[in-house]
Amino acid sequence: MAVRVDLNISLDGFATTTDQTPENPFGEDWGRLTAAYVATRTMQERVFGNADSGTTGIDEKYAAAYFEGIGAEIMGAGMFGLHLHGDDPDWRGWWGEEPPFRCPVFVLTHAERPSIEFANGTSFHFVAASPREALEQAQEAACKRDVRVGGGASVVRDFLLAGLVDRLHVAIAPILLGRGIRLWDDLRGLESGYEVTSETDDESGTVHLTFSR
Amino acid sequence: MAVRVDLNISLDGFATTTDQTPENPFGEDWGRLTAAYVATRTMQERVFGNADSGTTGIDEKYAAAYFEGIGAEIMGAGMFGLHLHGDDPDWRGWWGEEPPFRCPVFVLTHAERPSIEFANGTSFHFVAASPREALEQAQEAACKRDVRVGGGASVVRDFLLAGLVDRLHVAIAPILLGRGIRLWDDLRGLESGYEVTSETDDESGTVHLTFSR
Repeated sequence: MAVRVDLNISLDGFATTTDQTPENPFGEDWGRLTAAYVATRTMQERVFGNADSGTTGIDEKYAAAYFEGIGAEIMGAGMFGLHLHGDDPDWRGWWGEEPPFRCPVFVLTHAERPSIEFANGTSFHFVAASPREALEQAQEAACKRDVRVGGGASVVRDFLLAGLVDRLHVAIAPILLGRGIRLWDDLRGLESGYEVTSETDDESGTVHLTFSR
Repeated sequence: MAVRVDLNISLDGFATTTDQTPENPFGEDWGRLTAAYVATRTMQERVFGNADSGTTGIDEKYAAAYFEGIGAEIMGAGMFGLHLHGDDPDWRGWWGEEPPFRCPVFVLTHAERPSIEFANGTSFHFVAASPREALEQAQEAACKRDVRVGGGASVVRDFLLAGLVDRLHVAIAPILLGRGIRLWDDLRGLESGYEVTSETDDESGTVHLTFSR
């Protein structure tokens, strides 16, 4: 029942991009940040429905592990899209009718919204809760499987600061964004109490760094 | 005649630490930032005079290459120690009578100080110059060998912003300092025009990332 985080960050530490507009809801930077991850076989199959395509190297190893053993997810309001679409009562997230989570997802927000259920096992529940309270709800829903804290950066930082994360994997893209929300602010000494390992995908240049305890 | 940079940075991007005091002139953070580098065979021999000791892995590969082919060095006033010792006319740097450079070193400062010469080939020259002007002087002194921009972080950033650096190697220590001077500020898009490669020292966990053109 580990609590896991996987984030794509730039070399200068930006995990959440801020160049989004309603017309380009992920922004240009997000595409560059996640390009290597999106290119993997797992993501091509699971998110885009492209069977038998995608990369199969170190990046894919992490992408395949991403969904494995996860029983519930927690995400911030921004990741679900409420910062842009909170006024729309029919907003159901970015992911169409096949959200890739296939488990209960707890969205941290003070807005009251009814839960949403999808046929593939994904459900979204909107909760106003502290990191610890949200985690308790998610762990109960996860039926002894792991809980992922999905993002964005400031939500992950709250969980890290509360000492709740057992495994933090960052995929560092070899690019400098110079803008966005930093993952690493105020986390001095985080490495204490974790073992840190890393490896590189030679093709994409992505550095995969894992803190585990 | 390449222009080269090698820096030790933390995972959160701090290349220059700011916890120095006159009593502890490098600070605690500096020791942690450079521990893997100081532990290498090359550094143990060249800086500390300990023959046949030190690590021999990936970290050592970069440490050995550090001094190779360098004909001159450029550094900021802070790296030479003028921020703490600028009032002392007898200050000769941190490195005793055997500074590890063994070549002409140009220290960027508006203070006028006489040059200093050491028996091992190291000399320090104090120049008030733009990055481009300082580089011209250093390249002339380097006799067609490479020039290193040694640091600190803000001096390196000035040279990067001026497009003067041909090879940037950062050794990323898997620690979060949360304070200091960031290398990566204002460098959005730096990767354009460079090839970026990386590899990890499995023992120390240091990620070596190289931008080259």
